[in-house]
Amino acid sequence: MSIPKDARINLSPEDIPKKWYNFAAEVPDIKPPINPGTKEPAKPEDFEPIFCKEIIRQEGSTERFINIPEEVRDNLIYLNRPAPLQRAYRLEKALKTPARIYFKREDMSPLGSHKGNTALAQAFYNADAGIHTLTTETGAGQWGTALAMVSNLYDIKTTVFMVKGSFMAKPLRKTIINTYGATIYASPSEYTEFGKKVLKEHPDTSGSLGIAISEACEMAAKDEHTCYSLGSVLNHVMLHQSVIGLETMQQMDIGEIDPDYVIACAGGGSNFAGMVLPMLGEKMAGRKFADTQFIAVEPKAAPSLTKGEYKYDYGDTAGFTPLLMMYTLGSDYIPSAIHAGGLRYHGMSPLVSAAYDRNLITARSYDQTQTFEAGLMFARTEGIIPAPESCHALKAAIDVALECKEKKEEKDIVFCLSGHGLLDLYGYEQYMDGTLPSSDRNDL
Amino acid sequence: MSIPKDARINLSPEDIPKKWYNFAAEVPDIKPPINPGTKEPAKPEDFEPIFCKEIIRQEGSTERFINIPEEVRDNLIYLNRPAPLQRAYRLEKALKTPARIYFKREDMSPLGSHKGNTALAQAFYNADAGIHTLTTETGAGQWGTALAMVSNLYDIKTTVFMVKGSFMAKPLRKTIINTYGATIYASPSEYTEFGKKVLKEHPDTSGSLGIAISEACEMAAKDEHTCYSLGSVLNHVMLHQSVIGLETMQQMDIGEIDPDYVIACAGGGSNFAGMVLPMLGEKMAGRKFADTQFIAVEPKAAPSLTKGEYKYDYGDTAGFTPLLMMYTLGSDYIPSAIHAGGLRYHGMSPLVSAAYDRNLITARSYDQTQTFEAGLMFARTEGIIPAPESCHALKAAIDVALECKEKKEEKDIVFCLSGHGLLDLYGYEQYMDGTLPSSDRNDL
Repeated sequence: MSIPKDARINLSPEDIPKKWYNFAAEVPDIKPPINPGTKEPAKPEDFEPIFCKEIIRQEGSTERFINIPEEVRDNLIYLNRPAPLQRAYRLEKALKTPARIYFKREDMSPLGSHKGNTALAQAFYNADAGIHTLTTETGAGQWGTALAMVSNLYDIKTTVFMVKGSFMAKPLRKTIINTYGATIYASPSEYTEFGKKVLKEHPDTSGSLGIAISEACEMAAKDEHTCYSLGSVLNHVMLHQSVIGLETMQQMDIGEIDPDYVIACAGGGSNFAGMVLPMLGEKMAGRKFADTQFIAVEPKAAPSLTKGEYKYDYGDTAGFTPLLMMYTLGSDYIPSAIHAGGLRYHGMSPLVSAAYDRNLITARSYDQTQTFEAGLMFARTEGIIPAPESCHALKAAIDVALECKEKKEEKDIVFCLSGHGLLDLYGYEQYMDGTLPSSDRNDL
Repeated sequence: MSIPKDARINLSPEDIPKKWYNFAAEVPDIKPPINPGTKEPAKPEDFEPIFCKEIIRQEGSTERFINIPEEVRDNLIYLNRPAPLQRAYRLEKALKTPARIYFKREDMSPLGSHKGNTALAQAFYNADAGIHTLTTETGAGQWGTALAMVSNLYDIKTTVFMVKGSFMAKPLRKTIINTYGATIYASPSEYTEFGKKVLKEHPDTSGSLGIAISEACEMAAKDEHTCYSLGSVLNHVMLHQSVIGLETMQQMDIGEIDPDYVIACAGGGSNFAGMVLPMLGEKMAGRKFADTQFIAVEPKAAPSLTKGEYKYDYGDTAGFTPLLMMYTLGSDYIPSAIHAGGLRYHGMSPLVSAAYDRNLITARSYDQTQTFEAGLMFARTEGIIPAPESCHALKAAIDVALECKEKKEEKDIVFCLSGHGLLDLYGYEQYMDGTLPSSDRNDL
């Protein structure tokens, strides 16, 4: 069995979007971040100790389109953009569904995930502002890897604080980040005051994303040529990721695909926002996607949209970051230790939260055992081993395709394959030998 | 610093070659394989217990071009073909060389290496012949992974015998191969008579490629619907890999690149042959490449071209396979345990050996410490972490570029990046922490 020759829609480098799409333009009335000290709306200057000016400007912007600087656009080639839109023809056959399933291939980046799209832009703006070092935190390791790689393109340095538990469990991530020339510390570390304090009080802690964020911010605030970089949640991150959806819309035009469903996984929200928010812009302008269902797929371990509350909450555990208006499980919520580390977050991007609150999108959640089952099926039909995060979107796509089979409906399903799983194979090993724990939090 | 917009030369799926190139047409007088039992030239029927008829036909063919079946050509999309030819612009800048360096991107396959090109063809012909199972051996794991993945495309099964030492040292390879639905055994195993015999005599052995080949062949010979598949050395493998060089020639035409040097790594020879032999065909026809130097790059741990002898030798350690006329270090030669497992072979493909014997190509060898230094530089400039095997070609490309710098020569260098290193990061870890052993065999 061969696939149809038109089963893969490629774009040329000149088709890479020239402008990012900003969903904040559609929801100018969303509630602003709150300064945790004053409890007043945060002012641009509140962010200056940790972010450069252009990032702050983009964070607060409600312009619908923002130019992608040529120095960023040209370098998207290093992330192997534009990324193909491919038809999962063999998966369709295996499911015996009349539906057509397409997937956007963010797995083709040398980083293995979509994270480089915003890392590249952030590194450029910081280098342009005279910053010589970026600090960040990483949980699963994908974000730290992305920032470490792209920093080299603009000749700046990166320091990554990796949650100690992950640091010990995933030694390969340290190797990759070092190979790219960046510095990586297990957090809590001896390199910040906050880290030292935590270590003194809890010498045996395995750390947390909240602690790592605090350390990265402290280091950035202490040096005027050092800034902090965040890989999800904030508006400017959603903005930079819009290249995913903007490319996909061009490809759907070429392939004459009018999707009934567009699906992406959602942790902090950057992959989902990148894929879906540009399409919501078209929908709200009345141009397209009138009947399309947009589905955010969460892990049952951190179901912020499906089980959370829409309210102001901290971005970190310690309560140092601004309060954001978002769907949240509470900043003290501790998700189970699932393999999809990139989805293990208590809150959801304010822009994605706003779209959910306005009923522009729907959400569903899965246990990780269900998602690895889907991943295995994809590997054996399409030849690509998906990242554990991407398996969530894939599982929803399969479920929708099976609904279509039952109803004998020939629908078009498009999902985002946010990354490959070559650096996260242990979950597959556990799934296959029957030792993968359920990630469901039955107490919610 | 951004790269020039024409720094990456893409092809469209319709540009994928329609015929493979067969270097055997240029050297019809090379000495044939010898049957190890009769010591007479091997007859096609000698191979029938382990290979299907079309593979045997191709192995002995001296036709210059052989049609690629549509069922193979269409499925090359699953290996992300055609693969880009990219300019290593940032590496050039870092080296301050006037030379232009281009690299062919075999790293973009979901398998992470070029091995799928022949796996796909072999799986097709075997499925077409009614074979339901392929057996093979794997050392480093890339070949076993490739065959496991593509077998699914033609609905056949794969059984992989992995050298026990590697099996224990690289547990991720077992996970990937299982994820693709294939069976993998540590060799020597209890599943063959030969494996049982070895285990009885040497219960603690860590195995060898020779033993694994013997087990895979035994299993194939025992069942009429099971065949054996080999990932390097033989003529039909070199034939299928020619898509690499055929694509690259199209891309060099588009980019008006007239290479002064074409470089690829060489273990059994499949990557080098794939890249270079189609160009040698053009050279011998007097059409192109009159002044191009073709360089095979070997590990000092297994320098079959640079230190071996051109003679008949066995393909395996035990002496079960036909004798092949090739450059060899002796079938009892044991290379050091280098990270570039794919280059750890005592002999060299008969077709590559013939090209070397006729002075159509040159060869050089490197210690693995030198190659990882090159790999680190590439990761930090070009953003891709090369496979340890590919680091050999890269190291030679860097050395040539530095010679150009010294001589102030603006030359064109093209090398093959045979794969990425995301599944072989431990070598980088060792290189960076100073514990990587030299692989030089000073006794040669």
